Amino acid sequence: MNTVRPFLGSLFGTVLLVTNLLPAVAQEVLPSWNDGAAKTRIVDFVKATVTQGGNAYVAPEDRVAVFDNDGTLWSEQPYYFQLGFMLDRVKTLAPEHPEWTTKEPFKSILEGDLKGIAKGGEKGIVELGMVTHAGMTSDQFTTIVTDWFASARHPKTGKPFNEMTYLPMRELLDYLRDNGFKTFIVSGGGVEFMRPITEKAYGIPPEQVVGSTIVTEYDVVGDIPVLKRLPKIDFIDDGPGKPVGINKFIGRRPIFVAGNSDGDYEMLRWVTSAKHSGLAMIVHHTDAKREYAYDRDSAFGKLSKALDEAQQRNWLVVDMKDDWKKVYAFEQ
Amino acid sequence: MNTVRPFLGSLFGTVLLVTNLLPAVAQEVLPSWNDGAAKTRIVDFVKATVTQGGNAYVAPEDRVAVFDNDGTLWSEQPYYFQLGFMLDRVKTLAPEHPEWTTKEPFKSILEGDLKGIAKGGEKGIVELGMVTHAGMTSDQFTTIVTDWFASARHPKTGKPFNEMTYLPMRELLDYLRDNGFKTFIVSGGGVEFMRPITEKAYGIPPEQVVGSTIVTEYDVVGDIPVLKRLPKIDFIDDGPGKPVGINKFIGRRPIFVAGNSDGDYEMLRWVTSAKHSGLAMIVHHTDAKREYAYDRDSAFGKLSKALDEAQQRNWLVVDMKDDWKKVYAFEQ
Repeated sequence: MNTVRPFLGSLFGTVLLVTNLLPAVAQEVLPSWNDGAAKTRIVDFVKATVTQGGNAYVAPEDRVAVFDNDGTLWSEQPYYFQLGFMLDRVKTLAPEHPEWTTKEPFKSILEGDLKGIAKGGEKGIVELGMVTHAGMTSDQFTTIVTDWFASARHPKTGKPFNEMTYLPMRELLDYLRDNGFKTFIVSGGGVEFMRPITEKAYGIPPEQVVGSTIVTEYDVVGDIPVLKRLPKIDFIDDGPGKPVGINKFIGRRPIFVAGNSDGDYEMLRWVTSAKHSGLAMIVHHTDAKREYAYDRDSAFGKLSKALDEAQQRNWLVVDMKDDWKKVYAFEQ
Repeated sequence: MNTVRPFLGSLFGTVLLVTNLLPAVAQEVLPSWNDGAAKTRIVDFVKATVTQGGNAYVAPEDRVAVFDNDGTLWSEQPYYFQLGFMLDRVKTLAPEHPEWTTKEPFKSILEGDLKGIAKGGEKGIVELGMVTHAGMTSDQFTTIVTDWFASARHPKTGKPFNEMTYLPMRELLDYLRDNGFKTFIVSGGGVEFMRPITEKAYGIPPEQVVGSTIVTEYDVVGDIPVLKRLPKIDFIDDGPGKPVGINKFIGRRPIFVAGNSDGDYEMLRWVTSAKHSGLAMIVHHTDAKREYAYDRDSAFGKLSKALDEAQQRNWLVVDMKDDWKKVYAFEQ
């Protein structure tokens, strides 16, 4: 031990002390959220969580926050973006599959008949998923997805899909992380579909993305090890699968959860039944002008049971229209 | 923007610059490693990885390091510690199972006949695993495991199992983390068996532990959501399962890997076949006095193929006897 370190330690301490006092003065918290009950409840929860000695204090290592993706962090209308990927992928692969011109659901996709996609039934949809997500290596799939995000555009806004994220939710992710939370995505979407973009879009690294998986298999081609994506579902991270996925991948009970549909119901229950006081929030899509307005009757992101029970379970329902100043960063 | 921040930024920069220069002077790196080729290679690899502008520089977010657990971070003799847990668990549960006095492998366990455990065949071993690992909730299992670690003792050293970790490897974990690496366990062991102790033993949080899993199911008992552990294997994180597990749970290709047996062979291959220059190391158990000496003929941690190919694949073989000053922290 030399004498330089204690000196620096003390200097460091002073600097940290001063800088810790700065944020409250220098910047507003959650600037795209309107002042109101929702914002207040979030801020109160976070403040209580980090207040040492308080009843609701939670040690930094237990500050785990989980977020659904579709409809919670980015839009899911007019269809899940991953379905958009599938539709485009079918068009790209069509020249190699002349049989698709007469076979559902490919026929409807190639004819631009979105409503006809269901004609092939559930079996057809699963086949659609497998054809577009399997039969290549993991590295190849990552390249395909990355290229798609670079070129594909949302049918309504014309924006790249990875810009269709909700600014207030990105601020919430930052705010939680600034307060020592570790943030995770827990989505029904495919994990290898999300991972190429979550770091840039949300500041969430690949290892903090939990999602549905298909079976992959180790193989050696030539002398090169590869992971082959097989046309077989491994795990569906939706509904009751979400608490299972959290337990499997994360291994801790979160203290914060955000969702927007009945697919998040069990996850909301799981988080808020723990001993510590957690916060569960539901993003309610009420803004037909800036985004979409839907809940009970939507094919994507149906919200009914979770909405019915929100009050009795003390879940925070966020009203997009009233609680958010902006929805997307690209808005004027 | 006020004028305090740029000033503090500049002050901070100076302080960081000075403190960054300190470690090399103030403390020895990897103190429990003997000076020699192994230590030099590790240090050279880490220095090259963090040297900006160098050929082998790797951005912090891609500094992923994975470690096998049994035989790599802690001992695996005279048997896997998780097997020790199973044996003790059978003894605890025996009063509720009078049929075990005549049924293998339980009969042999209760009679203390370790060699007889195999009498029930593979089916018996799987049943042993299921009886001791399923039929309770995840929370209950965590409590059972935590209690076991608090009381169980290693048959040779008499130490708690979670103190049977290798000091040089814990130093290596710290050293990698000090240099911006994110460290993960990728083990054939059960993920819910390891997670209760990995934070304290290795500084590795639950969400950075990849392991074998059994099927869990969400259920609501009374009004309380629980995760039930079912007697069915979900995923075996061993051999070719390790690259699959890394891809599924972590989603990035590591640049550092440590293993000790042929169960790590595919993981070693997977890491060192990437484009960037990764480092793969094998812990070779050569120290019969301080630990155990074994490789090709061991029932636990058999090392044969990976050892044969180590030189041609440029994998670093660490000789426990020659390369480590100490094996365990509790040694005099």
